[in-house]
Amino acid sequence: MPPGLKDVAARAGVSIKTVSNVVNGYVHVSPATRARVQQAIEALGYIPNVAARQLRSGRSGVIALAVPELQSPYFAELAGLIVQAAERRSWTVLIDQTDGQAERERNLVAGLRRHAIDGLIFSPLALAGEELTSSGDTPMVLLGERVWHGPADHVAIDNTAAAADATGHLAALGRRRIAAIGAQSPPSAVTAHQRLAGYRAALAEAGLPEDPALIAEVDSFHRADGAAAMRRLLDGPGRPDAVFAFNDVLALGAIRALLDAGRSVPGDVAVIGFDDIEDGRFSTPTLSTVAPDTAEIARLVVELLAERLGEEKAGPPREVRVAYRLVPRESTLGRA
Amino acid sequence: MPPGLKDVAARAGVSIKTVSNVVNGYVHVSPATRARVQQAIEALGYIPNVAARQLRSGRSGVIALAVPELQSPYFAELAGLIVQAAERRSWTVLIDQTDGQAERERNLVAGLRRHAIDGLIFSPLALAGEELTSSGDTPMVLLGERVWHGPADHVAIDNTAAAADATGHLAALGRRRIAAIGAQSPPSAVTAHQRLAGYRAALAEAGLPEDPALIAEVDSFHRADGAAAMRRLLDGPGRPDAVFAFNDVLALGAIRALLDAGRSVPGDVAVIGFDDIEDGRFSTPTLSTVAPDTAEIARLVVELLAERLGEEKAGPPREVRVAYRLVPRESTLGRA
Repeated sequence: MPPGLKDVAARAGVSIKTVSNVVNGYVHVSPATRARVQQAIEALGYIPNVAARQLRSGRSGVIALAVPELQSPYFAELAGLIVQAAERRSWTVLIDQTDGQAERERNLVAGLRRHAIDGLIFSPLALAGEELTSSGDTPMVLLGERVWHGPADHVAIDNTAAAADATGHLAALGRRRIAAIGAQSPPSAVTAHQRLAGYRAALAEAGLPEDPALIAEVDSFHRADGAAAMRRLLDGPGRPDAVFAFNDVLALGAIRALLDAGRSVPGDVAVIGFDDIEDGRFSTPTLSTVAPDTAEIARLVVELLAERLGEEKAGPPREVRVAYRLVPRESTLGRA
Repeated sequence: MPPGLKDVAARAGVSIKTVSNVVNGYVHVSPATRARVQQAIEALGYIPNVAARQLRSGRSGVIALAVPELQSPYFAELAGLIVQAAERRSWTVLIDQTDGQAERERNLVAGLRRHAIDGLIFSPLALAGEELTSSGDTPMVLLGERVWHGPADHVAIDNTAAAADATGHLAALGRRRIAAIGAQSPPSAVTAHQRLAGYRAALAEAGLPEDPALIAEVDSFHRADGAAAMRRLLDGPGRPDAVFAFNDVLALGAIRALLDAGRSVPGDVAVIGFDDIEDGRFSTPTLSTVAPDTAEIARLVVELLAERLGEEKAGPPREVRVAYRLVPRESTLGRA
């Protein structure tokens, strides 16, 4: 007979409940105990019976991750990291793309229980506040800027401070006519509003005047939008010598438009983005950016969800801020 | 009372069953009838009751899409297009990332019915043939090169011919020492084997000798692999004047390594990739590539699955080839 929970518990000198907690990836096990249980599991070659486990726990072992857009390299990278973090708890992650549409986000939140899903990690774009509370008793962890002091655990970076750091980096390099690409009008465009607020704060901090001719709106955050916005800035009266683009793909589009217009980067115009997607590490020039600690975001959302699935079912929503760092590369510093 | 199926049927002059077929996105409705029903739906403001519909049909309205890797821009773009195509049938798509691991692909195929999923669109990397038949009676459509004459409907492009076209483009430009980046040893690496076969066929066709010093293996298809392979090719005896990289991100990594080594693209070395991801349309230089008709692939896999969910449940597996085209850009032609 293959070894069971009981055998692992006996060998590790802990209760069956403790082994179960380790196997289920719950967090309230001390690292030392966890290590002892893991050793016993490996020594005995114990394989958790996933189906039996699910039967006992009433859980499916499946969580959902809902993001606005998978074509966005940032969300694609984040989704990949969350799948890997979840895999370490033997969870299957099913990913849903909402396109940021309120209707689909509402259906998602309302329809969770139908799909035998244990929990949801959700990066909402259209919904906020009370609208996010209708998930019944399916635990949910929120991602991104949309919601603060909302109804569920929430993980994000300090978006406004990060945007100010990116803009401040351009000012520190002596740039005086710093443009912003990525402003958006709708009140729901929280990411854009926060990054614009950070941009403005950094201009004020550097004693630079704000010039509306240097602020370019975009419909969405894609390369083509960045290129079009850059062309408008070059055709306008703003005469930018630097650009803070609100994400990396906007920045990469802007760089391409600059080179097409015969401008050098960073000689004529320095460019910084936001997200630290892989593209920017290999582009020409390589892209200066703000790097959220995406791996930590992925680890944390999975851990917070595991806690809500475990013994910390109740308790007030938690707000967790994750670190970020400025990553200067060739698009602002030039080639070494 | 809001309008129901019956009202739509009466207005359109068709049976309730026909309205139901249109609403459910089944295919065996003539375009004229479909248009009449759509007009009646719009005129009456009829909103299909999704829950009631599911109850009647025994379906959840949820399909799964399983891809090896979401961080790959190609799979991310394809997933986005499939979600959009499915949305036109009011299907929700849950996406699963397998990392191409046999164990996870097996669990996926075995575990379908548990998750109340109507059908699966699956791009397998590790599994093939018989192993793919265990999905019970959940309809499945396969994507990609891994399987031909397998157990289910299958949509792919002619990978070998496309690779030969990419290599032939370099030969037609007068390049004589054409390298290949992306070879892989494991027998399961079908994509790599097919693209290498196409590369070899095109060399033979152009009367160029094959030189092992011009073939670079990679562990995976990421930018860093492309850059490392390019550095090895430059350090070796091959003296390449052109590169066919087996996907676009390998090509973008290779281009960056060439520029870092002081080589011009395409002056010293012309580079072509494969996939036509968005990155390559905005990179410097823009990337020549092979463009599968990805929108058509997305449309077809959803249509084939809808047919299997509808009246064509049975019937032998279908093999569908989708068109591709060669897209020459700056990385082989230079700037206009």
